Amino acid sequence: MRYELYYWTGIQGRGEFVRLALEDAGADYIDVARKRGDKAIMSFLRGSQEGQLPFAPPFLKAGRTVIAQTATILAYLGPRLGLVPGGATAELYAQQLQLTIADFVVEIHDTHHPIAASQYYEEQRAAARKRSQVFRDERLPKFLDYFENVIERGNGRQALTRHSYVDLSLFQLVSGLDYAFPHAMHRMRDRIPHLRALAERIAERPNIAAYLQSPRRVPFNQEGIFRHYPALDPAR
Amino acid sequence: MRYELYYWTGIQGRGEFVRLALEDAGADYIDVARKRGDKAIMSFLRGSQEGQLPFAPPFLKAGRTVIAQTATILAYLGPRLGLVPGGATAELYAQQLQLTIADFVVEIHDTHHPIAASQYYEEQRAAARKRSQVFRDERLPKFLDYFENVIERGNGRQALTRHSYVDLSLFQLVSGLDYAFPHAMHRMRDRIPHLRALAERIAERPNIAAYLQSPRRVPFNQEGIFRHYPALDPAR
Repeated sequence: MRYELYYWTGIQGRGEFVRLALEDAGADYIDVARKRGDKAIMSFLRGSQEGQLPFAPPFLKAGRTVIAQTATILAYLGPRLGLVPGGATAELYAQQLQLTIADFVVEIHDTHHPIAASQYYEEQRAAARKRSQVFRDERLPKFLDYFENVIERGNGRQALTRHSYVDLSLFQLVSGLDYAFPHAMHRMRDRIPHLRALAERIAERPNIAAYLQSPRRVPFNQEGIFRHYPALDPAR
Repeated sequence: MRYELYYWTGIQGRGEFVRLALEDAGADYIDVARKRGDKAIMSFLRGSQEGQLPFAPPFLKAGRTVIAQTATILAYLGPRLGLVPGGATAELYAQQLQLTIADFVVEIHDTHHPIAASQYYEEQRAAARKRSQVFRDERLPKFLDYFENVIERGNGRQALTRHSYVDLSLFQLVSGLDYAFPHAMHRMRDRIPHLRALAERIAERPNIAAYLQSPRRVPFNQEGIFRHYPALDPAR
């Protein structure tokens, strides 16, 4: 099966969580908007296709099925790409963890856009500073402590009993946070040894290492979810 | 199977999306914290149980399996309670719609708490007014138009080909928005006839009607996701 991934060009965004799974598994896929432009996405959002209507990208076309929402796409791909342990309980737990990652991603995005995604950062800078302080002091430690705990309770090296799409997403989370909040992440370093070790092992997986070196990996930038604004991550 | 639902007492919150599914199906369940207090939740969050670790309530205990995240709980319960059409495609679409509802719920919550969930509304009133204006002008119409469209593309009466947990959640969404943003919802009235009709039909389902009249239905209040602050919903 050749999968078609639909996601905005120019940023990693939420599409990256799907891309990492496809790349790690060596799946056959096309990144449609990179070939045909963002207008290929718009026609789906307007509902020109049969069947399921996505609210926003990323969505995946697998044969005639259109699957939207990052976590749902990964729930679909997981068993097909060998990226989730077998059994209903493991699949449910993977889903739950992925949704908690998704919740965290919203909060990370909203540090720089607490008022409106449709307005520039510069228009909401004061609120962004306030929200980021709460994020650094409360939310970042709470989420990272949780995922550290999950790995400790898992097999000590991975979130589940073996390699999964959740680990790939945790790698993306740590990488993005290192880019966006280097100071806050440095202060967290000793609290998340398992998460750090997991992220390092993921980066060394052959398919992931090759992907990260390839032009297919868009660098982190100031348009995506993870953005580095020094005012939002003071050295203290 | 007797399900155990764990959710904070005193609010409807995200637990209500699960409760509506259990009530509609006439499932055998205990609302654990209402019997034993919120401390029953805390012990799970600290990880005293075997197996899966929830980040936050709601979570459901089904035998020995602990399932967290509203959408994952509903994905689990859907086929078991007859609340999703058969087939993988329908289940995936239900999941995607439920996750879009979850995204909307975060945005609804953040209208009154744009800076910090841990601080009072009164401490973030100025930012709340700005975020709510963007919410009323852009986000509320965008999400409601989308769900209206989904029902039109579904069978015209329901989101999927038959009654599902998604319809129950859409009912909850409309009810909560009517409470929190009566003026903005009044202005939307003519744009969402299918969604309105669906919400009315759900309210008349015998088990739902009985539930809404029962003491188990906590009224909307100023502690939950849906809150009515006149400053955030001006008459114009």
